[in-house]
Parts: sequence; structure tokens; C-alpha cells
Amino acid sequence: MTSATGTPAYRRLSVEARRAQLLDAALSLFAHRAPEEVSLDDVAEAAGVSRPLVYRYFPGGKQQLYEAALRTAADDLEQCFAEPPEGPLTARLSRALDRYLAFVDQHDTGFAALLQGGSVVETSRTTAIVDGVRRAAAEHILDHLAVDEPGPRLRMTVRMWITAVEAASLIWLDEDKQPPLDELRDGLVEQFMAVLTAAAGRDAQTADVVRAALALETPDGPAGGLARRVLPVVSDAAHLL
Amino acid sequence: MTSATGTPAYRRLSVEARRAQLLDAALSLFAHRAPEEVSLDDVAEAAGVSRPLVYRYFPGGKQQLYEAALRTAADDLEQCFAEPPEGPLTARLSRALDRYLAFVDQHDTGFAALLQGGSVVETSRTTAIVDGVRRAAAEHILDHLAVDEPGPRLRMTVRMWITAVEAASLIWLDEDKQPPLDELRDGLVEQFMAVLTAAAGRDAQTADVVRAALALETPDGPAGGLARRVLPVVSDAAHLL
Repeated sequence: MTSATGTPAYRRLSVEARRAQLLDAALSLFAHRAPEEVSLDDVAEAAGVSRPLVYRYFPGGKQQLYEAALRTAADDLEQCFAEPPEGPLTARLSRALDRYLAFVDQHDTGFAALLQGGSVVETSRTTAIVDGVRRAAAEHILDHLAVDEPGPRLRMTVRMWITAVEAASLIWLDEDKQPPLDELRDGLVEQFMAVLTAAAGRDAQTADVVRAALALETPDGPAGGLARRVLPVVSDAAHLL
Repeated sequence: MTSATGTPAYRRLSVEARRAQLLDAALSLFAHRAPEEVSLDDVAEAAGVSRPLVYRYFPGGKQQLYEAALRTAADDLEQCFAEPPEGPLTARLSRALDRYLAFVDQHDTGFAALLQGGSVVETSRTTAIVDGVRRAAAEHILDHLAVDEPGPRLRMTVRMWITAVEAASLIWLDEDKQPPLDELRDGLVEQFMAVLTAAAGRDAQTADVVRAALALETPDGPAGGLARRVLPVVSDAAHLL
């Protein structure tokens, strides 16, 4: 950054604003490169500041900067599943997944490096941050299911689905972002309805949740489409009833 | 170990047998303690040998021993999903899951430490070994589905379910091994049938797989039970059709 008079000009920023600027630069770099491939010089250059300035804010160096950037990303990610408790469940889930998948799309390399493990910057602290995101997502979804005290089967079903969504995200990145995002999203919503319905067969609380959810669904929504597409596939299985 | 004359007597073992004995001792220790809490002295003591002997076989110390023990465990785990291609799909999956869940039960602490990440012994190599197990399990299951060239949707569905099974195993360990193993297994088999059926709504190959699988299922098997339990839950949703 060069001012009109040709001298390097660091904008004067408050401590908080400077910190946010450095984190923003770091996050952009960590989003598209493996942590091993990002240096503090890169961060300084991307933020248009000197390396000593980066160290002044993050004396722990790259590890501290990485964890702080991850914390910022985790805060964003946790908000993906926050959604007003209105309308059909599948519509809410679709909107939440749109936000989540947009995040995955925007932070592709960093997201994969973080979740695939074995990275040099992975510590029990980074693992705890990622687990915090998973827990927050599960709580948001349980809120959408509107049960006061979710039992172990409902909780396990939700947590299993969240892990499956993560796996799908990694596979999607690995397969050059195929299928298109809206198709991936619809498939994930349908998987959720499917596992919830299967669990309902064994758990009265989950059965109540499914009945209440289906009552709000419409024929032209995801649950209606799923029901109509699946019926012909299972219609030959009357011998099981 | 002490011989009849009172002198310490290491049994004479071949190189391979000694290595196997040390790995066996290490695996028992790593199964029930976090890697951080296992020392080479512990391994030497458990195997009834001296610490220098352990180092002679594993000059890389604990990290090398851990990776070798993990490799051995991974070989066992990969075999869990190998199953003769006979009988209903749900019966084969149930037997495979029985073996897998018995492994989880027997290696509880080590299994959790390995998969939860952030461990001091986690490296890109240990991550690669774990990924290898996931891939092998997916290939076994795709074999059971008897498709020559599984397409991306079928592959993704299987891989998502495997990740969900892992998540369920960790939750099960975290919740003091509740519910009982056979209930957990049945729930996981039902989740597989549910996600496969949902995916069949969007993919002709998966639809063929589901039709072929359901044709072999019996009313008293898992698929029959699932169908009968789920029908009453969804019977009020005729407005979606």
C-alpha cells in the first residue's frame, strides 16, 4: 500500500481493527492453502503490514494466528445453522445448508486440511474448536426439532447426520465440487429426513418429531418430492409387510 | 518371567514372533490408554522384555511402535466388513457391524483417541492409515451392493454412512457404551437402508441396488421390521403425495 506521496502508509487502525484486519488476511490465505504453505511473511504481505507488526499482535507466531483465524471462522460457521423457527423443517435445513456449503466452497483447501487431520497446526485446541462447531450445529438442529429434552437416540441421529454432512463436504471438494451445490444440498436434506424417519421407528420422541415435521411439509417441497420419488422404488417390497 | 533356575528367561523367539509379541503388548496398552499415557517402559513390562529390546525392534521409539500397532489394528479392522456375498444385505451388514463394534468395544480408549484427533502421535501417516480403513470398508460394502461400477452418488452415500458409523461409535463410547451393542447395530443397519433408499429417489443405479436388496429381505429381518415400524409414523403424510 503506497500513499499519494509515494511513502508506505499503514492506515492507522485501532488495536481491534488491526487485529481483525490481520485475521481477515490470515483467513483468506488459510482458506486456499494448506497451513504448511502459509508463512507469516505471506500474512504480512496480504495485510500490507510488516512482519514485526504481525508478531506484535500474535507473539505466538503462525500457530497462534492459525488458531485465532480458526476461532473466527468457527464463529461464522456456527451461525450457519441459526435460522428463525418458522416454516417447514426442510426449508430451514436447506437455508442452513446453503450457508454451510457456501462456507465450504469459500474455504475449500483450509476446510479440507482442517478436517482431514494430521496437519502440523492441529492441536487439541484446534480439535476442540472444530468439535465446538459440531456441537453448536447439533444444538441448532435440535432447536428446529422443537423438543424440550432430546433423548439419546434423537441426539445421536442428529450428530451422525452432521458428521455425514462433513464427510459429504470433503468428498465434494475432493471431486472438484461435483455435484452442483443445490443438488448436494437437496440430497443432504433428504438424507436427514430419511435417517430421522428410520430412527422414528424405534423412538417415540423421534416419531413425534417426524409427525410434526411432516405435517408442515408441502407436496412441492423436499419431503413431498422425496416421498414421491421413493415410493416407486419400494413399491415392490410388499412382501416385507 | 523367571525360569526354573531363578534366572530371568526371555523365551527365544524368531524376529517375526518377537515383533508380533511386542506389537500385541503395545496394542493392548494403546487400546485402553491415551497414547500420551503409554511409555516404552510400559510396553517392555507388558511384553516381559527389556526396554533396549523394544528399541532394537522399534528404533523410532514410541511413534514407530504406535504406527506399527495401528497398522496391525487397521488390518484387523479392514477385515470386519469382509463377508461372503450371500443372503440378505441387512444380514451381511449386521454381521460386519458386529465385528466392527466388537473391535470398538475392545479398543475403546485407543479408538477414541485415534479418531478424535489432536493427539501427540497423530501424523499424516496415522491419518493415512485410518483413511485406508475407511476406503477398504467402503469397497467391501460396495462389493455387497454388487454393482460393477458404482457411480458418484452411490459411493458418496456409502462413504457418508461409514463416517456416520464412526461418529456413532464415538458417541457410544462417550455415553458409557449405551445403548446395548445389538440395539446400536440394528439402528445402524436401518440407517443404511434409509439413506440408500432416499438416494435411490435420485439415482437409477442406487434404485436398482435397493430393489435387488429388498427382494432378498424377509418380513422377519431388519428391513421388514423397519418397514412395519416406519409406516405408521409416515401414514399421516398422504398430503405430500
